[in-house]
Amino acid sequence: MYGERLARWERKVEWPLVIAALLFLAAYAAQILATPEGVVETVAEVVLKTTWALFLLDYVVRLAIAERRWTWFWRHLLDLAIVALPMFRPLRLMRFFTIIALIQRNTGTMLRGRVAMFTIGATALTVFVAALAVYDAEQSSGGPISTFGDAVWWAFETITTVGYGDYYPVTVTGRIVAVGLMVGGIALIGVVTATLASWIVQRVSVEAEEASAATETQVEALRGEIAELKQMLREAPRA
Amino acid sequence: MYGERLARWERKVEWPLVIAALLFLAAYAAQILATPEGVVETVAEVVLKTTWALFLLDYVVRLAIAERRWTWFWRHLLDLAIVALPMFRPLRLMRFFTIIALIQRNTGTMLRGRVAMFTIGATALTVFVAALAVYDAEQSSGGPISTFGDAVWWAFETITTVGYGDYYPVTVTGRIVAVGLMVGGIALIGVVTATLASWIVQRVSVEAEEASAATETQVEALRGEIAELKQMLREAPRA
Amino acid sequence: MYGERLARWERKVEWPLVIAALLFLAAYAAQILATPEGVVETVAEVVLKTTWALFLLDYVVRLAIAERRWTWFWRHLLDLAIVALPMFRPLRLMRFFTIIALIQRNTGTMLRGRVAMFTIGATALTVFVAALAVYDAEQSSGGPISTFGDAVWWAFETITTVGYGDYYPVTVTGRIVAVGLMVGGIALIGVVTATLASWIVQRVSVEAEEASAATETQVEALRGEIAELKQMLREAPRA
Amino acid sequence: MYGERLARWERKVEWPLVIAALLFLAAYAAQILATPEGVVETVAEVVLKTTWALFLLDYVVRLAIAERRWTWFWRHLLDLAIVALPMFRPLRLMRFFTIIALIQRNTGTMLRGRVAMFTIGATALTVFVAALAVYDAEQSSGGPISTFGDAVWWAFETITTVGYGDYYPVTVTGRIVAVGLMVGGIALIGVVTATLASWIVQRVSVEAEEASAATETQVEALRGEIAELKQMLREAPRA
Repeated sequence: MYGERLARWERKVEWPLVIAALLFLAAYAAQILATPEGVVETVAEVVLKTTWALFLLDYVVRLAIAERRWTWFWRHLLDLAIVALPMFRPLRLMRFFTIIALIQRNTGTMLRGRVAMFTIGATALTVFVAALAVYDAEQSSGGPISTFGDAVWWAFETITTVGYGDYYPVTVTGRIVAVGLMVGGIALIGVVTATLASWIVQRVSVEAEEASAATETQVEALRGEIAELKQMLREAPRA
Repeated sequence: MYGERLARWERKVEWPLVIAALLFLAAYAAQILATPEGVVETVAEVVLKTTWALFLLDYVVRLAIAERRWTWFWRHLLDLAIVALPMFRPLRLMRFFTIIALIQRNTGTMLRGRVAMFTIGATALTVFVAALAVYDAEQSSGGPISTFGDAVWWAFETITTVGYGDYYPVTVTGRIVAVGLMVGGIALIGVVTATLASWIVQRVSVEAEEASAATETQVEALRGEIAELKQMLREAPRA
Repeated sequence: MYGERLARWERKVEWPLVIAALLFLAAYAAQILATPEGVVETVAEVVLKTTWALFLLDYVVRLAIAERRWTWFWRHLLDLAIVALPMFRPLRLMRFFTIIALIQRNTGTMLRGRVAMFTIGATALTVFVAALAVYDAEQSSGGPISTFGDAVWWAFETITTVGYGDYYPVTVTGRIVAVGLMVGGIALIGVVTATLASWIVQRVSVEAEEASAATETQVEALRGEIAELKQMLREAPRA
Repeated sequence: MYGERLARWERKVEWPLVIAALLFLAAYAAQILATPEGVVETVAEVVLKTTWALFLLDYVVRLAIAERRWTWFWRHLLDLAIVALPMFRPLRLMRFFTIIALIQRNTGTMLRGRVAMFTIGATALTVFVAALAVYDAEQSSGGPISTFGDAVWWAFETITTVGYGDYYPVTVTGRIVAVGLMVGGIALIGVVTATLASWIVQRVSVEAEEASAATETQVEALRGEIAELKQMLREAPRA
C-alpha cells in the first residue's frame, strides 16, 4: 500500500517488536508490582527506555521509507501518539495497543478459529494491563481497590459487565481505565456473539439448502456442451 | 416522498440546524454546569429561546410545504413533541434526539464504517446529555450523585450495563433518564455486535465460497453462445 | 393443524381473550396496589374469577373440538398449567404468558418491524408484571424494595442487566421472579441485537452484491432459447 | 478419525458415562450439601472413587485403541487433565465439563432447536455446579455467601451479568469459579443472540427473496435439453 520497501521492513521487524513489547509490559508490571528496590527499579527503567527507543526507531524508519509519506503520516497518528506519549507514566500503557495490534497481525486472516484465539489473547492481556493501571492509580487513593489481586478480580467483573460493586475505582485515572475496560467488555460480548452467530447461520443454512444454488462449475459444464454442439453443427452440414 | 420542495428545504437547512442544535446543547449545559450569574444565564436563555424558535420555524415551514400534509403530520408527531415540549425544563433535552437524527442523516447511507462512526458519536452525545440531565435532577436530592464528574462516570457505568452501584439516581426524573440510558446501552451492545457479526459473516462466507454461485454475467454469456448457435443453424442448412 | 373448526374458534375468541387477559391483569394489579377496601377487593375478585372461568372455558372447548386430541393435549401442557395454576395467588401471573402469546399472535408474521413492536410491547408488560409480583412478594419482607415505584425501577435495572444493587429481592418468590426477569433481559439483548444484525447484514450485502446471482427467471429464459433452437432444428433439415 | 474401533467404543460407552457423570455430580453435591455423617459420606466417597475409576478406564482404553496415538494424546490433553486432576477436591468439578460434552454430543447435529435445548441444559448445570463450588469455597470465609440458596441466587445474578452486589465471592477459589461463570454468561448471551439472529435473518431473507436463485436441478434440466439437441443434430443430417 505504501510501497514494497515498507512492507518488507514490517515483515522483518515483526517478531523483534513483539518481543520488545512484551519486555516493555514486563518492565511496566515490575515497576508497579515489585517494591522498587534499587536493582529491579534500574533494570525496569532501562528496559522501558530501550524498548521505547526501539519503537521510536521503527516509527521513524517507517515514516522515512513509506511512499506517499503524508498519507501514511495522517493515517498513523495513533502510532505517533503511542510513540510520543509514554513519556508520561500513566500513559505508558498505550504500548498495550501495540501488542494488541501485533497479536491481531499474527493471527493472520480473520477466520472463526483465529477470531476466537485473538479474542482470548486480547481479553487476557486487556484484563492484565487494566488491572495493573488501575492498581497503580488506586492503591494509595483510599478507594476499595488496594491489592493487585483485587484489581484483577475487579477487571474481570468489569469486562464481563457484571459489576457487583464490591470494588470500583475512585480516581479519575482509574475511572478512565475503567471506561476503556467497559468498552472492551461491550466489544468482547460483540465478538463472541458475532462469531457464534456466523457459525450458527452457516450451520443452519447448510442444513436448509436442499436445493443448492447452481455453481460456476456447472455453468462452465453447460458452456462446454454448447461448444461441442457448435462444433457438431459446423461439421454436420458438410457431411 | 412529500414533494420536491420539502426535500430541497431539508437539504438547505440541514447544516444551520446542526449548528442551532449544538448551540442549544451548549446553552443547556452552561445553564446546568455554570453557577448562573447574570451574563452567562442571560446569554444561555437567549440562545435557548432563539434556537428553539428556529426549530419551531423549521417545523412550520416543513408542514406548510409538504405534499400530503396530513400523512406528514401523523408521521412526524415526534418532531412536534420535540418542538412543543422544551418549554418545560426537564424535557428540554428532547432536543437531543434532533442532534442524534442529524448525526444519522449526515453519516448517510448506512455502511459498516458509517455505522461505527454514528455509534461512537451518538454514544458520546448520549452519555454527555444523560450526565447533564441526571446531574440537574440529582444534585440537590441527597442521593449519591452530587458532582458532574460523578454523573459522567455513572452514565458510563450505566450505558455499558456494568452498574457497580457506587452511584445511582434516587429522583423520579433521574431514574427516567437512567432507564433511557439503559435502553441506549442495550441498543449499543446490539449495534456493536451486529456490525461485528455482519463483518465476520461476510469474511467467513468469502473464505468458504470455493464453489461460487453462478452469476448473471455467466448466464448472459451462455445466452450469447446459444444465440450464435441459432445463427449458425439458420445459415447452415442453406449451404 | 388440528382441524378447521379449532382454527375458526381461535380466530373468533382472539379479541375477547385479549380483553379478558387485560381485565385479569388490571384486577391483579388493583388487588396488589390498592389497599383492598371492600368494593375494590370484591370487584377485583369477581373479575379475576370471571376471566379465569373464560380461559378455562376456552381451554375445554379447544380440547373438545381439536382433531388428534391427544397430540393437542400433550403439545398444550403449558396452556393447561396456565389454566390450572392461577388458583394459587403467586402463580396467578402465569396469565401473563397468555398476554405475551396474544401480543405475538397479533403482531402476525415476524418481520423486522413487527419484531420491534413485539419486543417493546412484551418488554413493557414484563417489567410491569414483574414489578407487581416482586412488590407483592417483597413489600413486607424487610428487604430494600418497599414501594411499587422502587419495584418498577428495580425491574428496569434488572431486565437491562445493569443491577446497581440499590434494590434487590430477598424472598424466594421475589428471587424466582428476578431470575425470570434476568432471563428476559438476556432474551431482550438477543432480540435487539439480532434484529439490528439482520438489518445491517442485509444493507451491507445489498451494497456488496455487484455480481448478483443467476435467477430462476434467467434460467427459464435460457430454456426458452434452447426450445426455439430445437424447433428450428426440427424444421431446418426438411427445408 | 482415529479408527473404527475407537468410534465403536465411544458409541458403546456413551450412556454408561453419562450415568457415571451424573452419579459423580450427585455424590459431589451430597458431600458439600449434606452434613456428612458416616453413611452418606462413605457412600459419596465410594461413588466418587468408582466413577473416577470408570473415567480413567475409559481414557486408558481410548488411548490404547486409537490409531495415530500421539496425535490423539495431544488433542485430548483436556481429557487427561479431567481424569488426572479430580484427586484435588476443588478441581473435582472439572468432571462438569465431561457432562457438558456429553450433553452436547447427545443433542446431535447443531440445529436451532437443539442449540436451544443444549443452552438450557448447559446453563442449568453450570449454575448448579458453580453454586455448589462457590458455596463449598465461601461458606466458612466470612463473606456474604453463607447458604446454598444464596449461592444459587448469586450464580443466576452472575451468569446473567446483572451483579447487584448483595452477594459476591471473597476467596480466591470462589472468584476463579465466578470468572468462569461470568465467561459462561457472555457465552450465554452470545448463543441466545446468535440463535435468534440466525432465525430472524432466515425469516427476513425468505420474505425478501422474490427472485430465488437458480438451482442445480434447473441447470441439470437445461443440460438434458442440450443433450437432446445434440442427439437430434446427430440424426438430422443423415435424414
